[in-house]
Amino acid sequence: MFTTTEDIKIKNLKSGSIVTPKGFKTAGVHAGLRYAKKDLGVIYCEVPASCGAVYTQSHFQAAPLKVTQQSIAMEQKLQALIVNSACANACTGEQGMLDAFKMRDLCAEHLGIDNHLVAVSSTGVIGELLQMDKIAEGIKQLQPIQTSEAAEDFQTAILTTDIVMKKACYQLEIDGVTVTFGGAAKGSGMIHPNMATMLAFITTDANIESEHLQTAIGEMTDITFNQITVDGETSTNDTVLVMASGFAENKTLSPNHPEWNKFKSGLHLIFQDLAKQIARDGEGATKLVEVKVHGATTNKDANIIAKKIVGSNLVKTAIYGTDANWGRIIGAIGHSDAEVNPETVDVSIGSIEMLKGSQPVAFSEELAKEYLSQDEIIIEVHLHLGESTGTAWGCDLTYDYVKINASYRT
Amino acid sequence: MFTTTEDIKIKNLKSGSIVTPKGFKTAGVHAGLRYAKKDLGVIYCEVPASCGAVYTQSHFQAAPLKVTQQSIAMEQKLQALIVNSACANACTGEQGMLDAFKMRDLCAEHLGIDNHLVAVSSTGVIGELLQMDKIAEGIKQLQPIQTSEAAEDFQTAILTTDIVMKKACYQLEIDGVTVTFGGAAKGSGMIHPNMATMLAFITTDANIESEHLQTAIGEMTDITFNQITVDGETSTNDTVLVMASGFAENKTLSPNHPEWNKFKSGLHLIFQDLAKQIARDGEGATKLVEVKVHGATTNKDANIIAKKIVGSNLVKTAIYGTDANWGRIIGAIGHSDAEVNPETVDVSIGSIEMLKGSQPVAFSEELAKEYLSQDEIIIEVHLHLGESTGTAWGCDLTYDYVKINASYRT
Repeated sequence: MFTTTEDIKIKNLKSGSIVTPKGFKTAGVHAGLRYAKKDLGVIYCEVPASCGAVYTQSHFQAAPLKVTQQSIAMEQKLQALIVNSACANACTGEQGMLDAFKMRDLCAEHLGIDNHLVAVSSTGVIGELLQMDKIAEGIKQLQPIQTSEAAEDFQTAILTTDIVMKKACYQLEIDGVTVTFGGAAKGSGMIHPNMATMLAFITTDANIESEHLQTAIGEMTDITFNQITVDGETSTNDTVLVMASGFAENKTLSPNHPEWNKFKSGLHLIFQDLAKQIARDGEGATKLVEVKVHGATTNKDANIIAKKIVGSNLVKTAIYGTDANWGRIIGAIGHSDAEVNPETVDVSIGSIEMLKGSQPVAFSEELAKEYLSQDEIIIEVHLHLGESTGTAWGCDLTYDYVKINASYRT
Repeated sequence: MFTTTEDIKIKNLKSGSIVTPKGFKTAGVHAGLRYAKKDLGVIYCEVPASCGAVYTQSHFQAAPLKVTQQSIAMEQKLQALIVNSACANACTGEQGMLDAFKMRDLCAEHLGIDNHLVAVSSTGVIGELLQMDKIAEGIKQLQPIQTSEAAEDFQTAILTTDIVMKKACYQLEIDGVTVTFGGAAKGSGMIHPNMATMLAFITTDANIESEHLQTAIGEMTDITFNQITVDGETSTNDTVLVMASGFAENKTLSPNHPEWNKFKSGLHLIFQDLAKQIARDGEGATKLVEVKVHGATTNKDANIIAKKIVGSNLVKTAIYGTDANWGRIIGAIGHSDAEVNPETVDVSIGSIEMLKGSQPVAFSEELAKEYLSQDEIIIEVHLHLGESTGTAWGCDLTYDYVKINASYRT
């Protein structure tokens, strides 16, 4: 399994954003798709950027995702991303496709670039058409610049019912030059009649061909964004998209480059950082839950079990209730498809051992309750089968999750 | 797919129970495993009965399930079932196995039968040992008789936090003689530190060999008990067990018997009836939800999709909130592994059409809200791919689910 090791020096730029990597500008405006909040954003690169993306596995891929795939297919380059919130443009048939193409054309025209250099993204209501007049007016107002205020405008424009903005920025050296990664994301919000959508947009000034960028994106998505769960649902619009300007002027990156793993580590950290922010801000969530599985036969098995535990409603409610209910962790492990020896499982919550060789260990309920009262919970499982590991992130299941999802129209 | 057709005459005996089929007696007592409620029960057959059972797929099968499998393996006959609530005897290692064997021996001795004719079942706390002194004293008090009061004692003894008792009884004619099926079940209750456990015990006076009974049980479980979900969890103790006394004196049943399908229909109905009772009484539930999927390529695909929809937290909260949120149904269909054409899906809630050929249909929100306010909700999906169908049952996700599972210790 790929993990970012301690000896790679990577700097976390707390003040950085999607415009910190060289070559990127952004903007976010209120186009009127919703009452007051900014709802239309753009990322613009000074040159056609190398790019790569992964999309929802849902059978019902929304129109903008199909348009973005067509754009990238043309010459594996993107120079801009246009994104709206409030309407997902999903389950909208032919008109939805026409609207997504139109949105692409209007953005390209406004920025003076070829339309196949524009990616399109939407999040919000399913089954409703885009208000194209408002989109058109909004696009005209977009004036991308390279300031942290503009980055905040963009970060806000992509949110739905997320409580906090999600962004991250990391820097490392490749070929002796500084390479920067910047990212913005949105997580589980819900607008009638909709479901959670996850969007993550990452910029970097690394010099890399799209082909290799795509490989790294796929690999890093599997161990970060694909390992978070808020409520087990997959949206029609989920997208992770990376644009690379090349302005850092490192030697072109590929798996043969001596610092390829360093580049992947940067991508790994920014993906993981954004993924954890999304998990922590899950609907109604009060806690970030991290589950680490050790000693599995394969990384895949370890990841399956980790995600099963973090996705279990019973585990999630127990954590909300600060209840050290290891029986539910066993329950979640038990009904996974992964290889498990039912006689050799250890379970710890924080540093408190609860199960050793599949048998209960006496522990202080008081200390366990104290640990579970924190806002970041780590569950560790050891299967004692092999050397493989996996991690997943999620959140607790609270009254507010039910409230947000049951009563938002009343 | 097997379905019970209209032209098979099967009578639903509302007053019947597990002692209505000829040859069965029962009892339930308070052994003191919990504060006040009855917690130990027995089903006894006047003769060694043909039998069959299916068990949890969890890696962590509890000790009593292993003992029951050993009993049945001896000569494919059972004459008694001993069951306790309050303690699951799961994750209890060697001592747990010794206790389950001891429980079997004590029951066999008390009833004067061979110990391999006794099945053992437990439900309740995981990771704690059985209080064997109380079990031993309790077993001595068990005096199985053939009355509906005794059946109620048994039905109560197996419950954990279930709100209502679950029982059913059906009658049909085979070879011109009356064959009766009786059943008792428990669903999702939770006792520290535990998870939902599903137990279903069915008696019948049909004359049938264990081998063929097992085949029918497997087939009928797949389309009934395996198609219910309360919270997506699988217990370490789930068991469906059928005993057949043969006292109805029909010709021995097998797949070659001209009325084999009629027998299966009886089994189907009593399984489905108990399964729906369990779904309706899911933790915190206020509504029974039934999802029917039509037009799938295979029955397996139809069942997968039906269960995915009924298990979706977002669909479940929407139903609790009487919100006709078909976008969430699409979301659940979308991320299933089953074959789906994203252009041809119809969705109805009750008789209200919401999606036709994957595109929204205008409908009255008011009528939809009215329909969703009922306590039994039917969702229908048509995939327009083939002729196969599937059904699943579940319940809504409510504040009380979170309350029961988060705060029960405080």
